[in-house]
Amino acid sequence: MTEPDFRDYMTVRLIGGGADDASVVAAARVSTAGLDSLEYLEGGADEGSGLINFLMRNRHGTPFEHNQFRFYIHAPIFVFREFQRHRVGWSYNEESGRYTKLEPVFYIPSSQRKLVQEGKTGEYRFRAGNKEQHTLVAEGHKRVARQAYANYLRMLDMGVAKEVARMTLPLNLYSSMYATCNARSLMAFLGLRTERDEATFRSTPMREIEMVAEDMEDVFEALMPITHSAFNNSGRVCP
Amino acid sequence: MTEPDFRDYMTVRLIGGGADDASVVAAARVSTAGLDSLEYLEGGADEGSGLINFLMRNRHGTPFEHNQFRFYIHAPIFVFREFQRHRVGWSYNEESGRYTKLEPVFYIPSSQRKLVQEGKTGEYRFRAGNKEQHTLVAEGHKRVARQAYANYLRMLDMGVAKEVARMTLPLNLYSSMYATCNARSLMAFLGLRTERDEATFRSTPMREIEMVAEDMEDVFEALMPITHSAFNNSGRVCP
Amino acid sequence: MTEPDFRDYMTVRLIGGGADDASVVAAARVSTAGLDSLEYLEGGADEGSGLINFLMRNRHGTPFEHNQFRFYIHAPIFVFREFQRHRVGWSYNEESGRYTKLEPVFYIPSSQRKLVQEGKTGEYRFRAGNKEQHTLVAEGHKRVARQAYANYLRMLDMGVAKEVARMTLPLNLYSSMYATCNARSLMAFLGLRTERDEATFRSTPMREIEMVAEDMEDVFEALMPITHSAFNNSGRVCP
Amino acid sequence: MTEPDFRDYMTVRLIGGGADDASVVAAARVSTAGLDSLEYLEGGADEGSGLINFLMRNRHGTPFEHNQFRFYIHAPIFVFREFQRHRVGWSYNEESGRYTKLEPVFYIPSSQRKLVQEGKTGEYRFRAGNKEQHTLVAEGHKRVARQAYANYLRMLDMGVAKEVARMTLPLNLYSSMYATCNARSLMAFLGLRTERDEATFRSTPMREIEMVAEDMEDVFEALMPITHSAFNNSGRVCP
Repeated sequence: MTEPDFRDYMTVRLIGGGADDASVVAAARVSTAGLDSLEYLEGGADEGSGLINFLMRNRHGTPFEHNQFRFYIHAPIFVFREFQRHRVGWSYNEESGRYTKLEPVFYIPSSQRKLVQEGKTGEYRFRAGNKEQHTLVAEGHKRVARQAYANYLRMLDMGVAKEVARMTLPLNLYSSMYATCNARSLMAFLGLRTERDEATFRSTPMREIEMVAEDMEDVFEALMPITHSAFNNSGRVCP
Repeated sequence: MTEPDFRDYMTVRLIGGGADDASVVAAARVSTAGLDSLEYLEGGADEGSGLINFLMRNRHGTPFEHNQFRFYIHAPIFVFREFQRHRVGWSYNEESGRYTKLEPVFYIPSSQRKLVQEGKTGEYRFRAGNKEQHTLVAEGHKRVARQAYANYLRMLDMGVAKEVARMTLPLNLYSSMYATCNARSLMAFLGLRTERDEATFRSTPMREIEMVAEDMEDVFEALMPITHSAFNNSGRVCP
Repeated sequence: MTEPDFRDYMTVRLIGGGADDASVVAAARVSTAGLDSLEYLEGGADEGSGLINFLMRNRHGTPFEHNQFRFYIHAPIFVFREFQRHRVGWSYNEESGRYTKLEPVFYIPSSQRKLVQEGKTGEYRFRAGNKEQHTLVAEGHKRVARQAYANYLRMLDMGVAKEVARMTLPLNLYSSMYATCNARSLMAFLGLRTERDEATFRSTPMREIEMVAEDMEDVFEALMPITHSAFNNSGRVCP
Repeated sequence: MTEPDFRDYMTVRLIGGGADDASVVAAARVSTAGLDSLEYLEGGADEGSGLINFLMRNRHGTPFEHNQFRFYIHAPIFVFREFQRHRVGWSYNEESGRYTKLEPVFYIPSSQRKLVQEGKTGEYRFRAGNKEQHTLVAEGHKRVARQAYANYLRMLDMGVAKEVARMTLPLNLYSSMYATCNARSLMAFLGLRTERDEATFRSTPMREIEMVAEDMEDVFEALMPITHSAFNNSGRVCP
């Protein structure tokens, strides 16, 4: 058996869609300008800033929906479990353990990952683990991953269906998915899955989904800088 | 007062988004190919036909969601009332009678519009109206539209808020909206809002929303011909 | 023709569902207590207050979804137009102008309704209308309603289909609907459709939909007092 | 360490909500009867059968939404992974591996579970495994579960955060959730997650989620027998 691929990072790639600040302005302008609002689709973003901040602050959410981000994401199953709880404005297609043989790629926390939680439920604070703890986690997670994957392969070899064999695999196995959203559903995700000082309602996401969220936020900021800035200005509360 | 604009047609324009059959194939392929599925985004549609028909027939709906159609639609309010009941996978922004003075554009059924319904509730059949009925409808609807719009203007002149004045306007007043969807939510709409012989579950939509639906279906067929064909092959039941 | 029924109020009735604060506590407790969380379904609300406020403040929204409010609402069409833009967590069935003859019930603003708007778009302030304006509105709206309804009846008498005849009716015609939601979708609605000093994001709804919202909020407060209070404590931002 | 609990069954319990056929009839009747439709809420189901079958056959879906089923479900994580892909009309709260220590309960397929798949992707057929395969699966899955759980405990003992330790646990670990839906979203689920001869679009779900679905369908049939029957009559295509 080949050694599994152990890694400590996520992969996020924008693979399609279409998103810009002008689409927000045009959609908002249809409320007063009707057909003439289409001019704003081509328009410069100059004038848009005031309007977009107004929309965000007044929680006019629908103008932020007429755009699309299509992401390819490679992350562990425990991250996808949290991710796919976002139902509204999200579309998913994921690698299937029923239809395909799963590759041995597993997540192991990096030395940067804070390992120890303190405080009571719902108000955890995390601090760095010591060297012994990091070794325990890395070696323990690797050992179980190898044992589980060997068990998986043995079953496949013996003719057991993939969907039965894969039950033995651990939650840190990587999977792939397409996740498609719009700026509004993306902001709802970012508001909950990042921890930021400027947030009116502070969130405490698991670090691994925050790593995915941060990569997605970079894309968002690059394509819709005015909207992204307005989101921050409004305490990162999704409109 | 200027004479209102009476018209008997709808306006549907594709104003943005991004939709093709390749996105369906790629999204489905992620289930077996993971990252390699991205190749299909560029791929020819040749190989896609079998897969897309398979997805449709087996009601694998999610691969049809990673695309977007953004429409500008100009139609009477009674059409928008039905349209906006479609909640899932649809985003709307509409002209606002609170924020803007509404223009006097009203719908009058054309001479082609069948005016008489027969049969019992839920099983109506329509047949052509006679000349007297067409005259009655055209003249009656025009007269009331003029009376209502004059009332509207008078209130605006006297300083009454737009949102109060507009209550008097009739349901055949035109409005404008942006309506954004994906191929899956569009197929759900088309399945209910068109009447077609090849439908497994025959629907009996109001003719005016069907006029809008037919224009949207033309766009759908042009951008995603394989998906559109598979939809028809499967009895126009949205996956 | 009988004189239409002109009225200035809305009707909201709770007709079913099941909603209490205990369901929120139990749903939240499943995250730590699994099966044992079911005990909280019967539990007193005493202990629930701290938890419910915590959930609201930290935007844990899903525990507020395991309950249901079913409302019967009788209100003008222009109110339903705004209402039905709420897509998520809402179910609607409405009286049909295609299937039934519509009764002549129309909304006329009461003498309390502020009639004059000042300020620029998006920042309107309303002030009371003068007597002349109130007379103009009441008489103008009544006259057009009578003209439109007479036109409607004439077409029905001449055999024109109901769906064609009703296009002439004005937006202040009353309609009936069932609107079903849960506490989370109800809070999203209330946050946008009421204007309140304690709101972090102040909204400026049309007065007539706020009248409906206020009646719904009374029901919400009666059935889920702790949740309602926590909603206010958190600036009426839906979790 | 105590021996884990290995089991081969799912737990489904109705824990609340409110659902009956009368609510479907009443919601549909509001389209023609307005306020008078409320009488049907108390009504016998006698008259309802024809109407409910009509609604189902004509894909009038919304009348099936004004009711609620709240389920407590105990099943393996690989089942919840599929389950939670159902987004519309579903609410979830699940046991959290971040907030609580997970109990060692694991799924092992029973001797009835077909273990061998034949045919190509998307058209699998399953047949019984032989004794050797059953032994391999049971013993392999148990061994890995014990190894993983021991690793999990060791990390907790060493002060590692629960959310980090749990990554090592396998997909056949049981979890608990509340899953709340209405008859329409339940039918969409059942149409895809059961395999039945009377289905117009035959589905091939994984057996373990079908076990959950079958228990839920029993509840559905008991509470809404006419709706359930109409669903079968219409080829189990959700309206």
